[in-house]
Amino acid sequence: MPRLRLALAQTNPIVGDLAANSDQVVAATRRAFDAGADLIAFGEMALSGYPIEDLAGNAGFLADNHDAVRALARRLADAGLGELPVIVGHADGPFTPRLMGTSNAPTAIAQNRASVLHRGEIAASYTKHHLPNYSVFDEYRNFIPGDELVVVRIKGVDVALLVCEDLWRDGGPVARVLAADAGLLVVINASPFERDKDEVRLPLVTRRATETDTIVAYVNLVGGQDDLVFDGDSVVVDGTGAILARAPQFTEHLLIVDVHPAEATDSALPDHVVRVALDAAEKSAPPIPSDIAVLPDDRQQLWDALVLGLRDYVRKNGFRSVVFGLSGGIDSAVCAALAVDALGPDSVYAVSLPSRYSSDHSRSDADDLAERVGLHYSVEPIADLVLPFEQQLGLDGLAAENLQARVRAVVLMGLSNQHGHLLLTTGNKTEISVGYSTIYGDSAGGFAPIKDVPKTLVWELARWRNEFALSRGETPPIPANSIEKPPSAELRPDQTDQDSLPPYEVLDEILDAYITRALGADEVIAAGFDADTVALVTKLVDRSEWKRRQGAIGPKISGMAFGRDRRLPITSHPTKAH
Amino acid sequence: MPRLRLALAQTNPIVGDLAANSDQVVAATRRAFDAGADLIAFGEMALSGYPIEDLAGNAGFLADNHDAVRALARRLADAGLGELPVIVGHADGPFTPRLMGTSNAPTAIAQNRASVLHRGEIAASYTKHHLPNYSVFDEYRNFIPGDELVVVRIKGVDVALLVCEDLWRDGGPVARVLAADAGLLVVINASPFERDKDEVRLPLVTRRATETDTIVAYVNLVGGQDDLVFDGDSVVVDGTGAILARAPQFTEHLLIVDVHPAEATDSALPDHVVRVALDAAEKSAPPIPSDIAVLPDDRQQLWDALVLGLRDYVRKNGFRSVVFGLSGGIDSAVCAALAVDALGPDSVYAVSLPSRYSSDHSRSDADDLAERVGLHYSVEPIADLVLPFEQQLGLDGLAAENLQARVRAVVLMGLSNQHGHLLLTTGNKTEISVGYSTIYGDSAGGFAPIKDVPKTLVWELARWRNEFALSRGETPPIPANSIEKPPSAELRPDQTDQDSLPPYEVLDEILDAYITRALGADEVIAAGFDADTVALVTKLVDRSEWKRRQGAIGPKISGMAFGRDRRLPITSHPTKAH
Repeated sequence: MPRLRLALAQTNPIVGDLAANSDQVVAATRRAFDAGADLIAFGEMALSGYPIEDLAGNAGFLADNHDAVRALARRLADAGLGELPVIVGHADGPFTPRLMGTSNAPTAIAQNRASVLHRGEIAASYTKHHLPNYSVFDEYRNFIPGDELVVVRIKGVDVALLVCEDLWRDGGPVARVLAADAGLLVVINASPFERDKDEVRLPLVTRRATETDTIVAYVNLVGGQDDLVFDGDSVVVDGTGAILARAPQFTEHLLIVDVHPAEATDSALPDHVVRVALDAAEKSAPPIPSDIAVLPDDRQQLWDALVLGLRDYVRKNGFRSVVFGLSGGIDSAVCAALAVDALGPDSVYAVSLPSRYSSDHSRSDADDLAERVGLHYSVEPIADLVLPFEQQLGLDGLAAENLQARVRAVVLMGLSNQHGHLLLTTGNKTEISVGYSTIYGDSAGGFAPIKDVPKTLVWELARWRNEFALSRGETPPIPANSIEKPPSAELRPDQTDQDSLPPYEVLDEILDAYITRALGADEVIAAGFDADTVALVTKLVDRSEWKRRQGAIGPKISGMAFGRDRRLPITSHPTKAH
Repeated sequence: MPRLRLALAQTNPIVGDLAANSDQVVAATRRAFDAGADLIAFGEMALSGYPIEDLAGNAGFLADNHDAVRALARRLADAGLGELPVIVGHADGPFTPRLMGTSNAPTAIAQNRASVLHRGEIAASYTKHHLPNYSVFDEYRNFIPGDELVVVRIKGVDVALLVCEDLWRDGGPVARVLAADAGLLVVINASPFERDKDEVRLPLVTRRATETDTIVAYVNLVGGQDDLVFDGDSVVVDGTGAILARAPQFTEHLLIVDVHPAEATDSALPDHVVRVALDAAEKSAPPIPSDIAVLPDDRQQLWDALVLGLRDYVRKNGFRSVVFGLSGGIDSAVCAALAVDALGPDSVYAVSLPSRYSSDHSRSDADDLAERVGLHYSVEPIADLVLPFEQQLGLDGLAAENLQARVRAVVLMGLSNQHGHLLLTTGNKTEISVGYSTIYGDSAGGFAPIKDVPKTLVWELARWRNEFALSRGETPPIPANSIEKPPSAELRPDQTDQDSLPPYEVLDEILDAYITRALGADEVIAAGFDADTVALVTKLVDRSEWKRRQGAIGPKISGMAFGRDRRLPITSHPTKAH
């Protein structure tokens, strides 16, 4: 069997930044070339960024992509890298519209492609067949599907191409890859992280490798893009199911591995033959040592995903710093630790905003955290700002409580506007689920770092992060008191969250059933929860949809995040007719 | 040819309120029965409400719908209406999941159906074939398509059923209707209003009627549902293209018309035969007079759509009143007039919030409007509320300007919370396009009545509304000075909008090209606009995507509204690589 030195580049593109993304491709290709690679593959849409959403309907944007991939091929050749076949994902178009219905309706004019660049040209181009249109994906809306298989013969090996979803569907192109008897299957992906996704993704890759007796090379993007975090975790599995190489998560990486795929037979004629002249490199290059990353602990994966999601949102949107209210509670403490891990303490500005109802420990716990992590810290008491509103408007009850949260938002947005900081909103998924927040108050902000983290998981991650620090001989960032004390919004005297809500352990389980698993209220009750509690919780969830629609985006880490993942009407009266 | 007395009921359902929606069906069916109708048809999803979005993935919700349509059939029979065939749209399920990809991905388990209820049972059920997945529609995400045609023989006439999008696609079920040689084609629809849509919809219905030489009965929902406004405009067209009956827009209506469809021949055997016993009614009922509504002026259609969208959002979400800031400017004046038209003056609370930069005319124009329309009016000066923030935080420039807008939002949300009013945000589409608003300031609110109305159209509608009042001998609601004066945010001395923005006439044309027609910046320049202006405007549009994501919903009246209609990344650097 021939030896093929395979490089998988998990890059971190920015949607639409064709120049910067092309630079990433060239840089990684040079490294792979220097390492004697015979083939390099990048992730799905590595040139365009993913997801491009309705930019797929913009003819000018598509024409730019069409030109950019050709320019990239020429640039690689001009840089002396033209002999190395490069598989890169990109949008292409504009194509003749696929009819979508009414004469004035938008039509799909784009394709999602994997192109093989070689000797300054596009040697072959595969168009994704299966367009995911569930969860956060709108690809059936945005793309024209392909229906042809592409097999490229490189150094005597038939290499079949697939894009992401194509691998997941039984039948379709996977079945045809089997029939084509390829020696290597390269799948380029833009597969976002969610908790335990590696428990689905790796078994799938392994199953495809073993059922086709083919080496499968799976390359994924890395990086944060709005509410998605691509985790990398690129992997190569052989026909026996053995992992030959695996890249680390949440970081850019060039994975290089020598594989020994079956040689092509004449009976399986490829669509394209790429005649490479890289034999000199093969002979001189020493064998590549094994590079198999071990996935970290589940909680570290979650933490790393949140850090990368925050860092990339800040960086890719041109911010240099973040600001947020530091209350002494667990949510803002965890956000502070995430922000410092993502950006370094010098880019993090935390503001304590004590009111007349704030406890002493709120202030002291915030002080303690600020000192532990070394961020910029200031105090802006709000009592003198709140009082004039109360006197002028005569508010009481919930209106007066919300007033305090909104005055804090005015202060924080003032500092954000004055100094150019991105305002973070520190609410957790449990709060957002039941609407336990003040709109235009504590929900104000451009990014929500723990939007998809339920309260009980916030605590768990805080404990894990402190233990992680201890294991490395560092100061635990989060004050123990912030973790241990009962949570309170502190908007009236002696208030605790449990005045209004069930215990968080129970609440999070009900929310998981109702939101993540989409069970009906009846089914949640049947699963063993108190009927009145379920009725309360589901009512609160349904009624706060309007608030969530106006909420900041934040990184998805679960199977059902708020936002594009869960699209529900605001106006809705779910009742029974019988 | 037999005479068939046909009733089309354009009802206004609420998503998920199966009990109330069933009541609407029963009430309209009784009226049709009493009028001697042989057949009544309701809109798409008239029983479930439309769109149900991801409720389609909730097994319990679907089971409720499945049961509700059966209960409705029995209830109609119990009410003595069982002999009258009723065509009603509804969701059904849960069905075996349609595989959508990954093993843990959501799967479609629902169908979008038109069922024929007769004698207490479901006599036939048609499942929508073509699932729109463009613009605001996500039906491919949510539904399993059908592939069978349903033809029902009623009083000797073969009646074919289609649902909405099925009518728009060439080929598919429309072609099979032609082959089936039906005498009557009933199409049930949930077709949202947009400007000039009647110029597309009626010609389509006419074309289908003439190309199949069949009477086409097109019945649409009416009413506001979140950001959509269904306009009714149900219509019956015969095989020569003549309009036999047409319902008015924007109001519930029962349209009854006698039609004379071709008698069924034995060669075209129907799928179902509904044996009716209504001949006595036919003989006794006198002929029905012609009922052909004339569509009003384009601007009145727009105004009526905005009024209905606002009224139904308020009503269906359980609010009894609205509040908003009345600045004396044109946007809040138009919103005030819309709110009074939608809800009556007694449900409308307007607040003047003068700052130290507010001009005298701001106050006097607001006073004038309040008097003209008779709404509740109060004044809350903000200078004393703003000052403490300025003193404590030392803000200047844009941060200080935004501060004033945010203090106003705190006041308005305080009043909203205290009194239960829904806060309206009065920004227009032009502002929202270029981000010319303060987030958590003037953009705060639960509903945005003129979100999809460009500034130049705001003026046009204001003038039209005043002329309309004069034509009816009423007081024009909007002060002439609010229409005539140069627009200003009044956040600093002598500010006008044109300090920061191109003239609105130019700006709105550029925005129409870039947003509604999705042209690239190059193409907009090529259409004759100044390159620097286009560069500024497109940059402002792209940069304010994050604000739009947090914006309130408002009624869609254009072909490209912000929200579900236009899905773009926040993080995006559209650059050229060449």
